[in-house]
Amino acid sequence: MNIENSSVGLITALERALGSTNLKLGRDIPEVALRDWSDERGGTPMALVTPRDTQAVAAVMRLCHAYDAPVVPQGGRSGLAGGAVPSEGAVLLSLSGLDQIEEIDAASGLMVVGAGCILQKIQEAAFEAGLSFPLDLGARGTCQIGGNIATNAGGNRVIRYGMTRDLVLGLEVVLADGTILPMMNRMPKNNAALDLKHLFIGSEGTLGIITRAVLKLHPGVGGANAALVAVADFAAAANLLRHAQRALSGRVTAFELMWNDYYRAVLSETGHRAPIAPEHPVYALIEMQGADADGDRPVFEAMLEAAFEAELLADAVIAQSQREVENFWSLRDGVAEILSRRAPTINFDVSVPLVRIGDCVDEIRAALLSTYPGLKTIFFGHAGDSNIHLVAGPIDGVDPTGHGIEKTVYEIIRTYGGSVSAEHGIGLHKKPWLSYSRSESELAMLRQLKRNLDPKGILNPGKVL
Amino acid sequence: MNIENSSVGLITALERALGSTNLKLGRDIPEVALRDWSDERGGTPMALVTPRDTQAVAAVMRLCHAYDAPVVPQGGRSGLAGGAVPSEGAVLLSLSGLDQIEEIDAASGLMVVGAGCILQKIQEAAFEAGLSFPLDLGARGTCQIGGNIATNAGGNRVIRYGMTRDLVLGLEVVLADGTILPMMNRMPKNNAALDLKHLFIGSEGTLGIITRAVLKLHPGVGGANAALVAVADFAAAANLLRHAQRALSGRVTAFELMWNDYYRAVLSETGHRAPIAPEHPVYALIEMQGADADGDRPVFEAMLEAAFEAELLADAVIAQSQREVENFWSLRDGVAEILSRRAPTINFDVSVPLVRIGDCVDEIRAALLSTYPGLKTIFFGHAGDSNIHLVAGPIDGVDPTGHGIEKTVYEIIRTYGGSVSAEHGIGLHKKPWLSYSRSESELAMLRQLKRNLDPKGILNPGKVL
Repeated sequence: MNIENSSVGLITALERALGSTNLKLGRDIPEVALRDWSDERGGTPMALVTPRDTQAVAAVMRLCHAYDAPVVPQGGRSGLAGGAVPSEGAVLLSLSGLDQIEEIDAASGLMVVGAGCILQKIQEAAFEAGLSFPLDLGARGTCQIGGNIATNAGGNRVIRYGMTRDLVLGLEVVLADGTILPMMNRMPKNNAALDLKHLFIGSEGTLGIITRAVLKLHPGVGGANAALVAVADFAAAANLLRHAQRALSGRVTAFELMWNDYYRAVLSETGHRAPIAPEHPVYALIEMQGADADGDRPVFEAMLEAAFEAELLADAVIAQSQREVENFWSLRDGVAEILSRRAPTINFDVSVPLVRIGDCVDEIRAALLSTYPGLKTIFFGHAGDSNIHLVAGPIDGVDPTGHGIEKTVYEIIRTYGGSVSAEHGIGLHKKPWLSYSRSESELAMLRQLKRNLDPKGILNPGKVL
Repeated sequence: MNIENSSVGLITALERALGSTNLKLGRDIPEVALRDWSDERGGTPMALVTPRDTQAVAAVMRLCHAYDAPVVPQGGRSGLAGGAVPSEGAVLLSLSGLDQIEEIDAASGLMVVGAGCILQKIQEAAFEAGLSFPLDLGARGTCQIGGNIATNAGGNRVIRYGMTRDLVLGLEVVLADGTILPMMNRMPKNNAALDLKHLFIGSEGTLGIITRAVLKLHPGVGGANAALVAVADFAAAANLLRHAQRALSGRVTAFELMWNDYYRAVLSETGHRAPIAPEHPVYALIEMQGADADGDRPVFEAMLEAAFEAELLADAVIAQSQREVENFWSLRDGVAEILSRRAPTINFDVSVPLVRIGDCVDEIRAALLSTYPGLKTIFFGHAGDSNIHLVAGPIDGVDPTGHGIEKTVYEIIRTYGGSVSAEHGIGLHKKPWLSYSRSESELAMLRQLKRNLDPKGILNPGKVL
């Protein structure tokens, strides 16, 4: 059959399987489905389907598999790497119809959800049950848990609770040929053969479609102690982190670094008041969440006093209320406003071994400024997790892309044994740089797995590899 | 070539590659290499090789692959599922030659080790560096980290620090054909494509040979607060755990349950003094490690007081010193002595969703006693992680195997959606029951992965699948 007839046949079959209300074609596909939060532009999709349950997802995959049709799974489309933008002629598979919180088992500390559940809804449901789901990122009101799992999302509190991977007990996945793979484990301990769910966490929709999940919940949190501190350099910050983790028995829930360029930018471009004068090389936001923030206060203060005595700190301000904790966070979250004021910029999400972060940042800054003298740069990040963010640009008011800036940064990251993607994934955006962080034998194994699990290459084609 | 010539050729090639001191044949293979801590009996191996570095392991695998020779990797051989016992005619590949701690990076909180490092040596090295490697199990002085990773070992403090998987940042693996797969990641955050190390963690030597690892270290621990408590039933224990996790902000490092049958057995068979009278249905050992155990004491005591007021506790004793903490643990560790006194027994390592543990234990006990009236049973386990252990036997002084006891237990576990192996793995011992905990499509995927990564089927043949 020719391609056009094949499309007609697939569309007819999809409509029969899903009903016409769950299928949109051509110009009826909403604009929002054509892109994600990155600046990547994909192709023109053939159809957008919105199955309402796992069986319907399986039916879509069986049909697309039979017709050799490319499928692009979409969650909340808040990814920054282009992993959810349409491939040319693809069937967009929206998971937003699987948006049920199916069960909360507070005694076991778990929640069963559909892949289309919005993260914030999950956070709120956990809170209502006296527990917490600690995954948290800026897109919380938009992103879906299926997308969080497919990209192994990170966020602000990885240092204490881990990546999304660490918050998933079980998964249900639909494979390329429509087979349903149930792995809805509910136990923290289950060594009955290899744990297959890890084949799909972080696979960015290239190996299977995540339809449901069993999430691990943590104890409820009553509040936080937090401090904004200034230190002499990155080495002092690393020593402070180690001191704090020891003194607080591993309870540091965030350790966000802001280099001087970032701190000055957020003060001058967002109108924030400066809790500490902007003369120090590096600033850190240290947070410790807990059931009883007031009860935890003495140990938090003692930790800071000991740090002062050990000359790890140049200056520090302790939040006196939950509102002040939020004010400290707004310094860190001010990056959103900086980004919109400075656009166009190039934004980096990289990681290097923690002990080398200071040298790496210095080397990147020096390399960029020597080649691009007018370039603005700001460095910040979840440094406690080895994660650095860099916003570069604009240069003299023009778009900084295509100037070799990415190559300069990623080549330095490579020499530091770092990762070109700490938390955003590869998608389309970082494909050219993947080989900087993965060896040829790792890439060969990734390609082998892809061929093995998706021999027709229909799942999110062109992404990652 | 015929089989005998083929063996001679392989042995000659192995000797050339490794040197004769690292190769043992026939009767020169020490007795200890023929079994592990399980009662599984394997076949007669052809050779035992002890490569001294990754290149030598790769050379062994290239040769065995070329000669289609089965390879059984061996660590400390302390596994309880028969995963390391010889296959007939196999080359035993001991990792004990890769026993170097290569590097401790205290600032980044990581350690680089060879697969043959003894767990206790790693624990001690972390302690010396002011940090901790929290994986801990009874075999600590014997087991090797490569075996811990290959079996995704659990142990006593999973509730706080996770399984071995959660303590591994990076891995180096040699594949079936001798390809070295370097994945020695050092960053907590690295989303540059799928995290391939999870294909090997818990694979029990069937998909690759683990040669080196980057381990995650936790802050150092100064001591622990602990209490032994008595509760009315499992539901009360589950409520107590939830209360404690909330009050201690997730810092519970152990929550070990002992049902009355276990508690009475350990008192009467090991001569322990009873900290609490043996009349209660269920006992729990609650522990909270921390940097400053004395400083943590008030919050720990307040947690217990609140539990009394909420009528979650029938009785409780708080450890007044680190020595008393150890005494409480010796009640739990007394199982080793019970096992040797009661032998022959059947020992179970299962998990079920936490909320269902109480009913499941009651159902298993009732089913066993109705069919086997003389059978002794004791129930205990890492219940905070959903893990139950059961020791059944002897019956009237005779070996309880072959009496259908396993079938009875595993059939109940299946109806509860549980796992036939919480932490020990499948090996040989649990192969007959794997399908009770994994669906047909999961088993198909496991077989597909095995064919894909080890098409000749030479890696630990006959284990797991």
